[in-house]
Amino acid sequence: MEKNESSAIEIAESSKERKGKAPLLAAAVGHDRAAGYKRGVSIFDLILRISAATAALAATIVMGTTEQTLPFFTQFFQFRAQYDDLPTFTFFVVGMAIVTGYLILSVPLSIVCIARPVAIGPRFLLIVCDTVTAVLATSAAGSSAAIVYLAHNGNSDANWLAICQQFNDFCQRVSGAVVAAFVAVVLLIFLVVLSAMALKKH
Amino acid sequence: MEKNESSAIEIAESSKERKGKAPLLAAAVGHDRAAGYKRGVSIFDLILRISAATAALAATIVMGTTEQTLPFFTQFFQFRAQYDDLPTFTFFVVGMAIVTGYLILSVPLSIVCIARPVAIGPRFLLIVCDTVTAVLATSAAGSSAAIVYLAHNGNSDANWLAICQQFNDFCQRVSGAVVAAFVAVVLLIFLVVLSAMALKKH
Repeated sequence: MEKNESSAIEIAESSKERKGKAPLLAAAVGHDRAAGYKRGVSIFDLILRISAATAALAATIVMGTTEQTLPFFTQFFQFRAQYDDLPTFTFFVVGMAIVTGYLILSVPLSIVCIARPVAIGPRFLLIVCDTVTAVLATSAAGSSAAIVYLAHNGNSDANWLAICQQFNDFCQRVSGAVVAAFVAVVLLIFLVVLSAMALKKH
Repeated sequence: MEKNESSAIEIAESSKERKGKAPLLAAAVGHDRAAGYKRGVSIFDLILRISAATAALAATIVMGTTEQTLPFFTQFFQFRAQYDDLPTFTFFVVGMAIVTGYLILSVPLSIVCIARPVAIGPRFLLIVCDTVTAVLATSAAGSSAAIVYLAHNGNSDANWLAICQQFNDFCQRVSGAVVAAFVAVVLLIFLVVLSAMALKKH
């Protein structure tokens, strides 16, 4: 009788323990799944980050090395165009160089997020810096796009003439740099969204 | 003897229950604290959102209503400047109108975040849309800033003359609109950071 009772108690206890463990186990599984999801997001983040850095670097180099000298010149003056003739393009080169530098420096932080997928600190830092960088890249790309548009089309109301008839190569390369900068901007937006997706899941 | 045993079992059970409850209680307290924190962040989000909408609306209206007619004219031509003489300023007005519209429409979503501080869906939607809107506002502000700079200073290399000597009022108002747009951009960056802070805490 007594033996029976004690076994009944043991069974009751073990079932209680099982009940106690079941949610814990579920939580651990959920935690693992969240970590796997976050690791996947981080790997995608790293790939996008390297692509954005490449685009930003290309934009910087193309703009910075653009120069065109026309094949005719007078005694006192030679017709020559390069990026620092226009302050906006100088801003573009400086801005995109900063963006490139940040994106390269943030690669280790992105690798930390792959190694420790549930860490929140590095990811929060990334989302804040990515947002600021996206805005900087956009301002560089947008302002240069406005000037490139003006160089291509001119403006009759302000009496500004198009300069791309003379400096055709120059305009082509500058347009290419602006397009590369906008590609970097789009990739940076995706980086912010990815970080938000990783922060949201817990 | 039997009574004693059963009471011992009861005690054991109740202590087990207490042990089971303690972490739950702590979790509930932590949950409440996180909810309070998130509600505070959401209230701050609403205030910043309304400020950003005001700044964006001001930028749109100031740019859209800017026009200046010079007090002298010829038989065939009257000297008159308004925003749609320059395609960049048209883009500014359209872009900032979209930004203003989004910011006003997102106010209800921000109120939902105050009412249900632990809901993740609306906050994720806000952070994605805020990022895209920040980039749109930056491109509008940046491109117009480049043109305003050109209108003020001209560019001797491209042979573009400054037009602000003639159209002084026009340039002043346009510059004001660009500054208001950059204020909206800064507020949008803070909105993204706030949403990230709320997503991070759980």
